[in-house]
Amino acid sequence: MGCAGGIFKYLKPAAVMETLTIVKIGGNIIDDEKKLSSFLESFASIQGNKILIHGGGKLATTVAEALGIPQLLIDGRRITDSQTLKVITMVYAGYINKNIIAGLQANGCNAIGLTGADANMVQAHKRAHLQTDYGFVGDIDSVNAGFIQNLLQAKYSLVIAPVTHDMKGVLLNTNADTIAQAIASAMSEIYQVELIYCFEKNGVLLDAGDDSTVIRKINKSGYDELKQKNIISAGMMPKLENAFAAIDKGVSKVIIGNAAYLQDLILHHSGTIIENE
Amino acid sequence: MGCAGGIFKYLKPAAVMETLTIVKIGGNIIDDEKKLSSFLESFASIQGNKILIHGGGKLATTVAEALGIPQLLIDGRRITDSQTLKVITMVYAGYINKNIIAGLQANGCNAIGLTGADANMVQAHKRAHLQTDYGFVGDIDSVNAGFIQNLLQAKYSLVIAPVTHDMKGVLLNTNADTIAQAIASAMSEIYQVELIYCFEKNGVLLDAGDDSTVIRKINKSGYDELKQKNIISAGMMPKLENAFAAIDKGVSKVIIGNAAYLQDLILHHSGTIIENE
Repeated sequence: MGCAGGIFKYLKPAAVMETLTIVKIGGNIIDDEKKLSSFLESFASIQGNKILIHGGGKLATTVAEALGIPQLLIDGRRITDSQTLKVITMVYAGYINKNIIAGLQANGCNAIGLTGADANMVQAHKRAHLQTDYGFVGDIDSVNAGFIQNLLQAKYSLVIAPVTHDMKGVLLNTNADTIAQAIASAMSEIYQVELIYCFEKNGVLLDAGDDSTVIRKINKSGYDELKQKNIISAGMMPKLENAFAAIDKGVSKVIIGNAAYLQDLILHHSGTIIENE
Repeated sequence: MGCAGGIFKYLKPAAVMETLTIVKIGGNIIDDEKKLSSFLESFASIQGNKILIHGGGKLATTVAEALGIPQLLIDGRRITDSQTLKVITMVYAGYINKNIIAGLQANGCNAIGLTGADANMVQAHKRAHLQTDYGFVGDIDSVNAGFIQNLLQAKYSLVIAPVTHDMKGVLLNTNADTIAQAIASAMSEIYQVELIYCFEKNGVLLDAGDDSTVIRKINKSGYDELKQKNIISAGMMPKLENAFAAIDKGVSKVIIGNAAYLQDLILHHSGTIIENE
């Protein structure tokens, strides 16, 4: 029996590094019941270790408006006051997360839904405000890789809502792209990790208006060049910054592409591949 | 490394049966921030294996009303239509569950918040309706005791929201007293289980209006007598039925008492003790 408790205490790489697929989906899939259902079927069919990280959707705004909580945006970013945090915790950690779990279980995928507060999986601190007070927004301090490893070893798939905590009792709204990057980076010490950012376009595009202009591969020097030429759209920048941060910290590959073609993204047949070389 | 995956597969009693404390709290504590905070401090200080099961609170009704979802009650019971289920999933599995987790983590208790859908922990089916259609309400079929055991062995405390699923993608609103009983019963094959039902009164009362008339012990024959004399209030009946169901299935003791005195309940210094003898 001794080993049962013990396995959660020691964190060490497997003799042969197993693969781990981490997929992040955004609000546009979550808001579309049919797209989400089809996506969950694809995700459930991924072989081996897998983690799904989801963003929010329009539901949070709808619920906030219905509850009479005004939604403040500064430079396009939502300000998370205490009432908005309440809505985010309800919608992200409750409604969206548990419906994804029920959907995956129905597809034979034994999933567990968690936030960063659970098992202190992702610890963060409230963002200090120099110019703009974003409210209850978390910047990540640490990822409990041992906890995640042990659930994966026991053949569970994890579904993570973008809510963290500060260990002082405060929940924090946290960017899902950044959580995906932080978890992928932490797990890359133990697994060969591929991180897939799914969204509504086919990849990083040369021409933002033309879905057939996918850039198939980007490395660091190529990225610098694209930036200099102003080819990368403002919306794509944070995703690529996260992608290169992940690569720098040991993630094998980051793939950016269309959620509708998840299987193709996994097989590297679609999307933009971000890697070191 | 082989044993790591293996421990989740086999379910066997420990050589010496460890104790497991299962506590259920209701809406009246959840609705009161100060009471809840004090309760969580007490719960965090419980030594050894522990599980907290929480009910809902007034917040679900408030949110439903704000969203314009009419709340139907038949014989005092809430009818869970699809819109109400949405609210329950948001409030119970999201807001309440994750705030409890953050609160316990702040008190040094390494807790994980789950619903019955997570890891297929509590599987249920939608209640068949003979006279009244209660909507998306679940009756429990099975408890995944092995999953719970392994989290406990790894020193995590569990916090469970009263939402289950049917393995077909449907979430179900499920009575928290009954979930507590079903989990306590299932775990009693592996642990020496004590189940504590916390509410706003000091225990089962001889005079419902007088908190000093706590019945200290009730066994089965005593219960039959109290029922015959109409001493048990209608509201207390389901709790006692669940208590005796738990005892019949191997739970050592059930204690019913005031959430404000959790430590006294654990030490059997307060509340009503339900046991076989």
